[in-house]
Amino acid sequence: MTRHYNFSAGPAALPESVLRQAQAEMLEWNGIGASIVEISHRSADFMAVAEQADQDLRTLLGISDDYAILFLGGGATTQQALLALNFASPGQRVDYVVTGHWGKTAIKQVSHYVDVHVAASSEADGFTSIPPRASWTLSPDAAYVHITDNETIHGVEFHDTPDVGQVPLIADFSSSIASEVVDVSRYGVIYAGAQKNLGPVGVAVVIIRRDLLERAGQPRADIFDYRSHVARDSMLNTPPTWNWYLAGLMFKWMLAEGGVAEFARRSAAKSALVYEAIDASGGFYRNTVQPAARSRMNIPFFLPDETLTTRFLAESKAGGLLALKGHKAVGGLRASLYNALPVDAAQALVDFMRDFQQRHG
Amino acid sequence: MTRHYNFSAGPAALPESVLRQAQAEMLEWNGIGASIVEISHRSADFMAVAEQADQDLRTLLGISDDYAILFLGGGATTQQALLALNFASPGQRVDYVVTGHWGKTAIKQVSHYVDVHVAASSEADGFTSIPPRASWTLSPDAAYVHITDNETIHGVEFHDTPDVGQVPLIADFSSSIASEVVDVSRYGVIYAGAQKNLGPVGVAVVIIRRDLLERAGQPRADIFDYRSHVARDSMLNTPPTWNWYLAGLMFKWMLAEGGVAEFARRSAAKSALVYEAIDASGGFYRNTVQPAARSRMNIPFFLPDETLTTRFLAESKAGGLLALKGHKAVGGLRASLYNALPVDAAQALVDFMRDFQQRHG
Repeated sequence: MTRHYNFSAGPAALPESVLRQAQAEMLEWNGIGASIVEISHRSADFMAVAEQADQDLRTLLGISDDYAILFLGGGATTQQALLALNFASPGQRVDYVVTGHWGKTAIKQVSHYVDVHVAASSEADGFTSIPPRASWTLSPDAAYVHITDNETIHGVEFHDTPDVGQVPLIADFSSSIASEVVDVSRYGVIYAGAQKNLGPVGVAVVIIRRDLLERAGQPRADIFDYRSHVARDSMLNTPPTWNWYLAGLMFKWMLAEGGVAEFARRSAAKSALVYEAIDASGGFYRNTVQPAARSRMNIPFFLPDETLTTRFLAESKAGGLLALKGHKAVGGLRASLYNALPVDAAQALVDFMRDFQQRHG
Repeated sequence: MTRHYNFSAGPAALPESVLRQAQAEMLEWNGIGASIVEISHRSADFMAVAEQADQDLRTLLGISDDYAILFLGGGATTQQALLALNFASPGQRVDYVVTGHWGKTAIKQVSHYVDVHVAASSEADGFTSIPPRASWTLSPDAAYVHITDNETIHGVEFHDTPDVGQVPLIADFSSSIASEVVDVSRYGVIYAGAQKNLGPVGVAVVIIRRDLLERAGQPRADIFDYRSHVARDSMLNTPPTWNWYLAGLMFKWMLAEGGVAEFARRSAAKSALVYEAIDASGGFYRNTVQPAARSRMNIPFFLPDETLTTRFLAESKAGGLLALKGHKAVGGLRASLYNALPVDAAQALVDFMRDFQQRHG
């Protein structure tokens, strides 16, 4: 059994100790005579796992009881649609700040339901910046303001929480949650697919300020109603129990490692290593994002030509550095540095980059 | 490690060999240096797993290329909402045949979108029968007719495919798929959560006759559009990859065991054992479903009083027979006999039932 350094953008690396526990418990969990994947979500055994995960995530992120937490299937994109259905009236104005591919995807989910106003966009510069807050044209009557905290494909990240006044701020934290200390109370809703920083694929986390649940929203199926999910503790229908359980194991691991403050420190260290290697390469490696907007999570970078890119991918893979291919929308290479990726992995990548440049630069 | 006989109604028992393979591959899959849960859904490695699962499910159920197959998160209940959004015009008439709790839930998802007509219901007799086809009041202009092939809570099952003429028949097969030989070509859509007969929790299968995808449906988010999911081979957003992979292992297991015909034989044998034990008990055990409508998958049954029910649950659990508690909506006991449950388990249950009656009857 060999485990390499895995720079996948998601589904992404998980801590080996978490996988080992899941492995040990795969045929029988906690002496109950069955696997956790084989028992009812409404059993006392699973309910305890679910409740513990809720509590641990509250501790990890500093989430008060003013917020409900949902663990749902369907991914973050499904949540993007549910935001408009639950928190805006039909045709109501909503403000979106677009800083990359996922901000555009978020709009695609709601354009049938609401009046989308793009309050700011960095599309004109190829999504290489965060538009300054002063340039945003916010609507005073908007149902909410939506941002993408970190853009996985373009490698652009908010480094603070924008002040949007009294309108609730909704943020897609799919690729940055639990990697930085965030004041949750400044957000109306934080949502994230778990498969990058928080746990396995197949479960999304939605953190909702409870007063927003009093909004009428739009006519919708019961399964699209966050109030119904909250009333049933995310068990309105059968939730993705195994994925929820594995996320819970990852929460425990993150708490044991030192919590979000420690992962913020590691994220800063990992990303600094890679950006320094790029910036010190004399243009052999290039990252096109404005330094102030650079992501600590996803670093897209480029070599002088396609032949070198292909060679870099083949050699890095052979050297035990996996999944460094860039997203097809931007090409090149990409290193994703989520919570489960150790600092040693970033160091190994940087060592490889320097060696590769020496041989091919 | 002890594995007991697990009669859970879902999430339900999985074959031990499938769990063992998942266990062996938990830290590294197929020599790639990472777990299958840690790699991109768009990687060549996962795409091959996904494609194989599609092919194996086609072989298992006899699904022609006239049908698309989707593997999606969000459960069967989400699909219930998407049916109306994709296959009916706003406010169009749809026909529902209600034979239990899940038929009612299906209506709850669509009542905001369409004109629901209950073409038949067995609610008046406590959902203990399938209304005769001749009694259904079908609408000639309905967008579709919806049935629940097997009602998990009430233990009522269709034993043939009703003829509904030219209107597409849509069926929730969550708790009976792959347990009986079905002519898929008689259905417009078959959908199922995997967590009972088909694989693990966290993934739903939707089998759609392709001509239905030409329907305009209703204004909806891109993520609610089956056409978008089909165009992207269920990878419009990040799918529940691990769950999909495990379902694929279960498909291979079912094919190796002899396919659906063999599971139909085992299902008949398992359910016959339990119903015979009930019917031979002189009223000590009672099942209230009309014999012609009895489910082969879920058998709710009742003891003379609550004290005996509590004792039965405690003693059966101590004897290695898990999860026999009835659903709270109907009380009593329930034995679920899905594909991964061996005939030996049904025999062990029946032996226990006879022994329990001798001691307490």
